Amino acid sequence: MKAVSLQELARLVNGEVIGDDGRIISGLNGMDLAGEEEITFVTDKKSALRMAGCRAGAFIVPAGFESDDRPCIRVGDPYLASAIIHLFFLEKPFEAAGIHPAAHIGRECRIADEVTIGPLVAVGDRVVIGKRVTLKPGVVIGDDVVIGDDCFLHANVTLADGCLLGRRVIVHSGTVIGSDGYGYAADGEGNHIKRPQVGIVRIDDDVEIGANVCIDRAAFGETRIKRGVKIDNLVQIAHNVVVGENSLLVAMAGIAGSTTLGRNVVLGAQTGVTGHLHLGDGSMAAGKSGVHTNLKKGAVVGGIPAVDIKVWGRASAVFSRLPQMLKDLRQLKKKVEMLAGRLGEKES
Amino acid sequence: MKAVSLQELARLVNGEVIGDDGRIISGLNGMDLAGEEEITFVTDKKSALRMAGCRAGAFIVPAGFESDDRPCIRVGDPYLASAIIHLFFLEKPFEAAGIHPAAHIGRECRIADEVTIGPLVAVGDRVVIGKRVTLKPGVVIGDDVVIGDDCFLHANVTLADGCLLGRRVIVHSGTVIGSDGYGYAADGEGNHIKRPQVGIVRIDDDVEIGANVCIDRAAFGETRIKRGVKIDNLVQIAHNVVVGENSLLVAMAGIAGSTTLGRNVVLGAQTGVTGHLHLGDGSMAAGKSGVHTNLKKGAVVGGIPAVDIKVWGRASAVFSRLPQMLKDLRQLKKKVEMLAGRLGEKES
Amino acid sequence: MKAVSLQELARLVNGEVIGDDGRIISGLNGMDLAGEEEITFVTDKKSALRMAGCRAGAFIVPAGFESDDRPCIRVGDPYLASAIIHLFFLEKPFEAAGIHPAAHIGRECRIADEVTIGPLVAVGDRVVIGKRVTLKPGVVIGDDVVIGDDCFLHANVTLADGCLLGRRVIVHSGTVIGSDGYGYAADGEGNHIKRPQVGIVRIDDDVEIGANVCIDRAAFGETRIKRGVKIDNLVQIAHNVVVGENSLLVAMAGIAGSTTLGRNVVLGAQTGVTGHLHLGDGSMAAGKSGVHTNLKKGAVVGGIPAVDIKVWGRASAVFSRLPQMLKDLRQLKKKVEMLAGRLGEKES
Repeated sequence: MKAVSLQELARLVNGEVIGDDGRIISGLNGMDLAGEEEITFVTDKKSALRMAGCRAGAFIVPAGFESDDRPCIRVGDPYLASAIIHLFFLEKPFEAAGIHPAAHIGRECRIADEVTIGPLVAVGDRVVIGKRVTLKPGVVIGDDVVIGDDCFLHANVTLADGCLLGRRVIVHSGTVIGSDGYGYAADGEGNHIKRPQVGIVRIDDDVEIGANVCIDRAAFGETRIKRGVKIDNLVQIAHNVVVGENSLLVAMAGIAGSTTLGRNVVLGAQTGVTGHLHLGDGSMAAGKSGVHTNLKKGAVVGGIPAVDIKVWGRASAVFSRLPQMLKDLRQLKKKVEMLAGRLGEKES
Repeated sequence: MKAVSLQELARLVNGEVIGDDGRIISGLNGMDLAGEEEITFVTDKKSALRMAGCRAGAFIVPAGFESDDRPCIRVGDPYLASAIIHLFFLEKPFEAAGIHPAAHIGRECRIADEVTIGPLVAVGDRVVIGKRVTLKPGVVIGDDVVIGDDCFLHANVTLADGCLLGRRVIVHSGTVIGSDGYGYAADGEGNHIKRPQVGIVRIDDDVEIGANVCIDRAAFGETRIKRGVKIDNLVQIAHNVVVGENSLLVAMAGIAGSTTLGRNVVLGAQTGVTGHLHLGDGSMAAGKSGVHTNLKKGAVVGGIPAVDIKVWGRASAVFSRLPQMLKDLRQLKKKVEMLAGRLGEKES
Repeated sequence: MKAVSLQELARLVNGEVIGDDGRIISGLNGMDLAGEEEITFVTDKKSALRMAGCRAGAFIVPAGFESDDRPCIRVGDPYLASAIIHLFFLEKPFEAAGIHPAAHIGRECRIADEVTIGPLVAVGDRVVIGKRVTLKPGVVIGDDVVIGDDCFLHANVTLADGCLLGRRVIVHSGTVIGSDGYGYAADGEGNHIKRPQVGIVRIDDDVEIGANVCIDRAAFGETRIKRGVKIDNLVQIAHNVVVGENSLLVAMAGIAGSTTLGRNVVLGAQTGVTGHLHLGDGSMAAGKSGVHTNLKKGAVVGGIPAVDIKVWGRASAVFSRLPQMLKDLRQLKKKVEMLAGRLGEKES
């Protein structure tokens, strides 16, 4: 367990110490749980109100925050600073447990010495595994796979033939990388002829993939997840999709075949994107939206089909009034007919 | 195989026998499948019409049901009574097969004598496993897990480090309990810094969880599924969610981080609930709805964003008429302008 | 590797060769990737424009296509023809690797000689496995399962007790077949009593099932997937559902209990269908729709709740104008009142 002074922690995050900068801290925790030797973090006024009842030994607080009698580190972004400090406390040297005797390794593999491959792991033929890789039990690796340094594959992950992982990729349990894309040709008699899916999935550095996600291999070429992308649970990524750097795909989002996403795109939970589109850099789709058109850089959309988020918000707010609007419209129609009649009488 | 009289079955469910109460019954089956030694059940008039063509030896029928010449058990709720009788026929003593030699058990585990742990199961270190627990092949249990008495984990379930199961918890295949929550801090340059997820998942007694479900561990503290909750397939439960007693989460529903559900909440299929909300006791969200606000006790909502279900139903019914309404509105506008013109002429 | 003349390939697909019919081709690839010894395919004018920059040795082109100097096979449907030719190049005799010593086979199984069962596969008791079946690592087969000839189960698939697969069924990783249906009876005090799920799942010939799909066993009887159905990733099929021949269920679609689909039904991605419905032959539901009613043969619907797709399309197009319509309606109301007032004055 690490134990360092507030001063040292502040240095990690370019923060300013308020109060006792020699205070020794040995961990980070949530406000409700932090003990006297732990630091916690305050992100807004609401959480600041809970400081009095909190036992933490120190607080990471936002820039404008006025000190009380509790030791604090003042930073621009307490949320980010707390992540950095938490990672600092948790980081530890990789402990290589080697290859468990109950793991099954195929032929002609090149596996770094310094790995942890658990029991009941199956690795195919000609697989390359980098340094400090962890494969938990139940992981199945196909043939001709490459796994970069410092990857961590949780239990029961499947990484199928030919797929490539960069460095520091984390994959959570139950996720399938390299399943066949959904591609069939109609034979004219109602039957579906399978189109072979002979491409791969390539995943770049620093990608994290949640649990029970599916990423299909390309029909030809590559399905590609670029550097820094973070994918939540139960997301579906179809064949030949490209997801740009640092994009965020929230739980249960789905992207149909051959669609490409720029950098820092955000898809909200349960969003669907149809195939063969391009979503520009920094574009966002609200949760549950259905994106049917290309999105320009920075566009923010919502709804099914998705439109500008403000337009959608305003229209949604009116939606509940539809029955009243219909009623009003009918009454108005009658009234106008009556007026027209009366005016006609006068005119005749 | 059990074989008991209709009289004895009636006693199990506080029912009244009509006809031959000594009739011997040895099982329960659906109406289309029941044979002469089996009992079946009639829940409504529609199913009652099929009695004539049914070979069942006896029927569980609702209170008002008039007997014909077939032996019946009359009860308040035939659906409930049939479940109780079916469970009675199927219940049998636990047969402990012990720990299969091809299972891998970690260090310092405490495992009851009376368990069935199949081949190709991996159990981590310091795991506690109660009596009459079944772990099917492919199950992976992390370190420091506790599994209460009478739990049943189907094949290929993953239960990650530190998670706690109460008693009589059933988990179906492919489900992942204890994957990391989806939490990142932005670094100001478009990159996402992982926030460590150091909490656990705690699941109380009598919970059943479907297949390929994901329940993320808490960032800090616990994600909590309370007693009697029933979760369907492919449901997503994010970090720090609390699901209250006896709630029902239907297939493909998703709940975002830190949202809490009261008792007996029902989320319809493919429903999404955003984070940091509270859904009151007994509240319900219709299938496919998107809940963006807190719900009061007993509230019933639908739509995206979700509103009162009646309001949503009425508005949805009008939705298809929007094009006609727009047309009418335009015509009316013209007509009113024309009338105003004619009136102006008259006035001038 | 096969190497055949253009002439021979044309014969496979009833095509007409344009140019050098003796040209030797040894594979098929996408336009961007095809080399000189490979054939590729052109499906529309847009892709035809890319022919000049393409290195492929030959092209599969549509009927009306005018030849340039490149060798072509002209066919009615290049998409279908390319699938057939690609499958021809990839097909190879089954190589039976037998049963890996680290697979666990139960008692009284009947397994054909000619199979490939990988390491870390668990097969239950009384299982029947046909010829040329492949079970990849991590597959778990329950008791009393039957798997027909030429099935391929990818890694980490679960096929639970009693389920039946026809011939040539492909199941992708993480998929669960035979999990319990979601059925409970309310006990009047808020608790849910499990209804035993004692049926099976029956899957007919030539079905393909994507990754992380869930297909629940019937409460009684069978959940049934008929011949030629193709199911994408993360689809949910509840107990007692019947999916008719050659239907297509796109990613993340869900079908509630006891609903039956006719032949060649198409459910778009993220579609939901409520229980106890019938969707007629050839009916289609657009992505993200919520189907709450029976569909007639050939019906095409969209929206939540789903209505005729044209009606939905038109209404959706108007949706964004709702705020303006409300504003217009209010102004019109005022104007009409004013007109009525003026007319009243004149009349008085």
